[in-house]
Amino acid sequence: MDEKTPTQQVTEWLDALGTALSNRDTGAAAELFGEDCYWRDLVSFTWNIYTAEGHDSLREMIEQAVIPSGPSGWQIEGEANLSNGVTEGFLRFETRVARGCGHVRLIKGRAWTLLTTMTELKGHEERKGPTREKGVEYGVHPGRKTWLEQRQKEDAELGVTVQPYVVIIGGGQGGIALGARLRQLNVPTIIIEKNERAGDSWRKRYKSLYLHDPVWYDHLPYIPFPEHWPVFCSKDKIADWLEMYTKVMELNYWGSTECKRAQYDETNREWIVEVVRDGEPLTLRPRHLVLATGSLGMPDMPSVTGMETFAGDLHHSSMHPGPDGYAGKRAVVIGSNTSAHDICAALWEEGADVTMVQRSSTLVARTDTLMDLTFRGLYSEAALQAGITTDRADLLFVSLPYKTLPAIQKPIYDEMQRRDAEFYARLEKAGFQLDFGEDGTGLLLKGLRRGGGFYIDVGASELIADGRIKLKSRTGVERIRERSIVLEDGSELPADLIVFATGYLPMNSWVTRLISKEVADKVGKCWGLGSGTRYDPGPWEGELRNMWKPTHQEALWFQGGNLHLARHFSLFVALQLKARMESIPTPVYGIGPVHHTS
Amino acid sequence: MDEKTPTQQVTEWLDALGTALSNRDTGAAAELFGEDCYWRDLVSFTWNIYTAEGHDSLREMIEQAVIPSGPSGWQIEGEANLSNGVTEGFLRFETRVARGCGHVRLIKGRAWTLLTTMTELKGHEERKGPTREKGVEYGVHPGRKTWLEQRQKEDAELGVTVQPYVVIIGGGQGGIALGARLRQLNVPTIIIEKNERAGDSWRKRYKSLYLHDPVWYDHLPYIPFPEHWPVFCSKDKIADWLEMYTKVMELNYWGSTECKRAQYDETNREWIVEVVRDGEPLTLRPRHLVLATGSLGMPDMPSVTGMETFAGDLHHSSMHPGPDGYAGKRAVVIGSNTSAHDICAALWEEGADVTMVQRSSTLVARTDTLMDLTFRGLYSEAALQAGITTDRADLLFVSLPYKTLPAIQKPIYDEMQRRDAEFYARLEKAGFQLDFGEDGTGLLLKGLRRGGGFYIDVGASELIADGRIKLKSRTGVERIRERSIVLEDGSELPADLIVFATGYLPMNSWVTRLISKEVADKVGKCWGLGSGTRYDPGPWEGELRNMWKPTHQEALWFQGGNLHLARHFSLFVALQLKARMESIPTPVYGIGPVHHTS
Repeated sequence: MDEKTPTQQVTEWLDALGTALSNRDTGAAAELFGEDCYWRDLVSFTWNIYTAEGHDSLREMIEQAVIPSGPSGWQIEGEANLSNGVTEGFLRFETRVARGCGHVRLIKGRAWTLLTTMTELKGHEERKGPTREKGVEYGVHPGRKTWLEQRQKEDAELGVTVQPYVVIIGGGQGGIALGARLRQLNVPTIIIEKNERAGDSWRKRYKSLYLHDPVWYDHLPYIPFPEHWPVFCSKDKIADWLEMYTKVMELNYWGSTECKRAQYDETNREWIVEVVRDGEPLTLRPRHLVLATGSLGMPDMPSVTGMETFAGDLHHSSMHPGPDGYAGKRAVVIGSNTSAHDICAALWEEGADVTMVQRSSTLVARTDTLMDLTFRGLYSEAALQAGITTDRADLLFVSLPYKTLPAIQKPIYDEMQRRDAEFYARLEKAGFQLDFGEDGTGLLLKGLRRGGGFYIDVGASELIADGRIKLKSRTGVERIRERSIVLEDGSELPADLIVFATGYLPMNSWVTRLISKEVADKVGKCWGLGSGTRYDPGPWEGELRNMWKPTHQEALWFQGGNLHLARHFSLFVALQLKARMESIPTPVYGIGPVHHTS
Repeated sequence: MDEKTPTQQVTEWLDALGTALSNRDTGAAAELFGEDCYWRDLVSFTWNIYTAEGHDSLREMIEQAVIPSGPSGWQIEGEANLSNGVTEGFLRFETRVARGCGHVRLIKGRAWTLLTTMTELKGHEERKGPTREKGVEYGVHPGRKTWLEQRQKEDAELGVTVQPYVVIIGGGQGGIALGARLRQLNVPTIIIEKNERAGDSWRKRYKSLYLHDPVWYDHLPYIPFPEHWPVFCSKDKIADWLEMYTKVMELNYWGSTECKRAQYDETNREWIVEVVRDGEPLTLRPRHLVLATGSLGMPDMPSVTGMETFAGDLHHSSMHPGPDGYAGKRAVVIGSNTSAHDICAALWEEGADVTMVQRSSTLVARTDTLMDLTFRGLYSEAALQAGITTDRADLLFVSLPYKTLPAIQKPIYDEMQRRDAEFYARLEKAGFQLDFGEDGTGLLLKGLRRGGGFYIDVGASELIADGRIKLKSRTGVERIRERSIVLEDGSELPADLIVFATGYLPMNSWVTRLISKEVADKVGKCWGLGSGTRYDPGPWEGELRNMWKPTHQEALWFQGGNLHLARHFSLFVALQLKARMESIPTPVYGIGPVHHTS
């Protein structure tokens, strides 16, 4: 055994798996996994996003989902490698109806993690490269329509005389990425966006907003950002890109259109979606409805005694225009996560007198340290030079089941605290309440569990540490007066501007608003893993709730996340929808009960 | 010698060249070339586009241009290979001020062709990939401008309070590609375009227009077309892409702006460019002026007796809207090149009665045959799979000096005639006058020598062969009457529509119109090689006249060509302009006398 190369080991393991599954021998297949084992499947066998954890769960999934799908053609992709006792490699495989790729990690010859993801449906492959369309028919064809005439016809008919198969509510990166995938799969789709133009949801944010994630992490499918793009991108530059992308990907993007109400017609198995487009009411009847209304729900604007009496400007961070005109003014920002920090820093740069009110502790990570410790291996120039393309990085990213993440993430944040100890000491000295997640597992897990609670520092922390941004910590808002804000600790801050950087309601608040409370409760909470930490109550679910996979409401889907998640998971949502459109059987395995309604 | 690998041969040859040049030993350097030899240089040593042909010319160039540039670092790129007795490989090198790449072909150990091209100026490299900008400054910076504010500031100031270094007249693919390169090199540039939007010069062509070149050949720099794009692209799809590209590449693109007049101020060494922008007159004072007004000049509309009396529609092909509304009408199209064929076919498809008037012979190549015999090796999926990226293909394309092309191209067209003999026989039987270039060297050379004279058949030829499009050949237009056209052969054709697909005036007609007849004559004819064939009078010039290189008018440049030429040669125009902006010495070698004024 020891003399085998990593590639031989993975090849033999895959051969053995293939043989066991062909023989329908669940026991033999399960024997290939170690005691501590995971098989994560994105759509290919389960028509779900599901992780089997441990042998019992694994056997059940193999028997009920994997073997019935007719898996075959297990092959290694490229070379495997060995590091820290783990042999790992990429792989590909097929089922009766689809092709997939994945990744496996072996410890002492048995699998610790196996990832399988669907890449395409047989007979419905995207046409590209060698299979691209010719674009124009040779010969003469009376009545032929040009590309423009076809586009104009579709634009005139879809949603009017021809119903789309899918309606996506929300035209940010989530809706756009999914719309692009569906267009390439020939699934008639309309994207509805209340803003006028694609990109407006970025344009309307505070002006100093730059992406806190680096460019390599943020690509959309099909058209990567050019090589000369900066590492961190302005919101307006991303906005322009989204607008261009929507146009050249030929999406049916309805700007200035608001969804008023959606109702599922059980009899006809279609949605009745009432929209107002450019002021005109219109009813759409798609077979599937996708909510891509943002990673989070609607702005969470607390009700504070006396806020209606405030004489200055008062708004939620989502409505904050930026610092212009606030020079010399007294600003109070409630909150201490990303938006709060960005807004405080921009106001300070403009010359305002700024106070941040920190109600609870925040995870702060310095951008350079974060890039080095977390992004560098997967999304960076260094990764690209090591052959880790965006596609490979995306696979590696999802190859570690959520259950394994805490043990992997905690050492990263231990190292971060060591490396930036002096920085953190100064922040704490200024009164800032720091955390690194309840269990010290850091930013990624905090994001997955509760969708926020952090700031990637690009400068504001320094202003807080040295007192240029004043800090009120361990307190909250008691009441608002005409020209001041009173905190729970009894202090009163004179104010011309109050910004509530208080976050967003849960994502399924949109379900309540657009569909019904009943459907919202049936579907339950979105996001979160059931980690049993704050804002993420148990029981453990193993995967993010409701995202990118079938829900308890037939034909209702959730698409969301940052640019990375929008890019990668839009593939799985698109394949699930395409399979349904083509009447390919999609037996869903492992859909869990709803534990929390919001 | 025989036992050396191709890579060793090329490596040793480059070492020997490097040594000879370092020793300033022209004789030793020239000895490395065979008797029949070429050194083609794109800007790197000559600050010109120049080919030394044969030993005398080679020695002079080595002595006067190459050695003074301080060449060094000659190295092979990748592996060389041997085929048909020719050993060839890619290479890179440096001069004191620049880096370059190229290609060499050895026969029996000595060079037959050497190509050297400049890729970047030292100290002025484009920032991309590992050297990309960070995009946002860490820390706090009072008064900092966001990306959007910087863009808005530039937009408000450039051309108004701040003069651009370069003005490009013409915002088609030529102006856009060059504008993108200059933006990446931080050369302040304004592109002026009389149409409202980027892409309009494509949008306004006849509706059935598709690119006759395949997608792999047509990429713009920096953002390649997506992999799912069709092989042949509709004009409107390209138009949308150009519009998006102009936006996301952040070009200063002035639509709805017309250049009225330009004059070179010898004293201040700047141009005085009078433009009308959105109806308002404005004077620009750039240091350099680039004409990117199309591969050709203004439409060539002949004056025909009686044309003012015609009762139907009469226009030049550039103004032809397409076939809509011409069903059942009688159309006469004068001309037999690409536009004439496309327009005839679309009118026939619409149900018009169509006659083509062929005044002189035309080269017809069937698209599939042309793809297979010419594009396949460089611009195709097969080429990509063989590792020939667009950049490599572009280098290979220019690696064969023009003098060598006839001998290489002729066999291709001999094969084409064999392969499609039956097709050509039917066309001739219908009276169509065919040629394959005066010397049988085909489409590429016909294009280079005279800028047209061909049709890539996508279906119209079949309509001509079987008489569905009627043909009048070996004749011209005598006069036009109220409802008919009289040909030189005495025949009279009733007509509701007459389209003059009669081509374009020479490119430097724009110089006469915008600058002066004097400057137009000083600069002389554009395009053409001096092949001594029809429309391309000798003497032999070795390179295309005036394109992408210094002209006899200081600070006046011509940028043009199809998407391929616009892509590749924009690099050299941009580097020449950047060098001048940075006051890097640019001694021009080998600028020839003007032999023809138009």
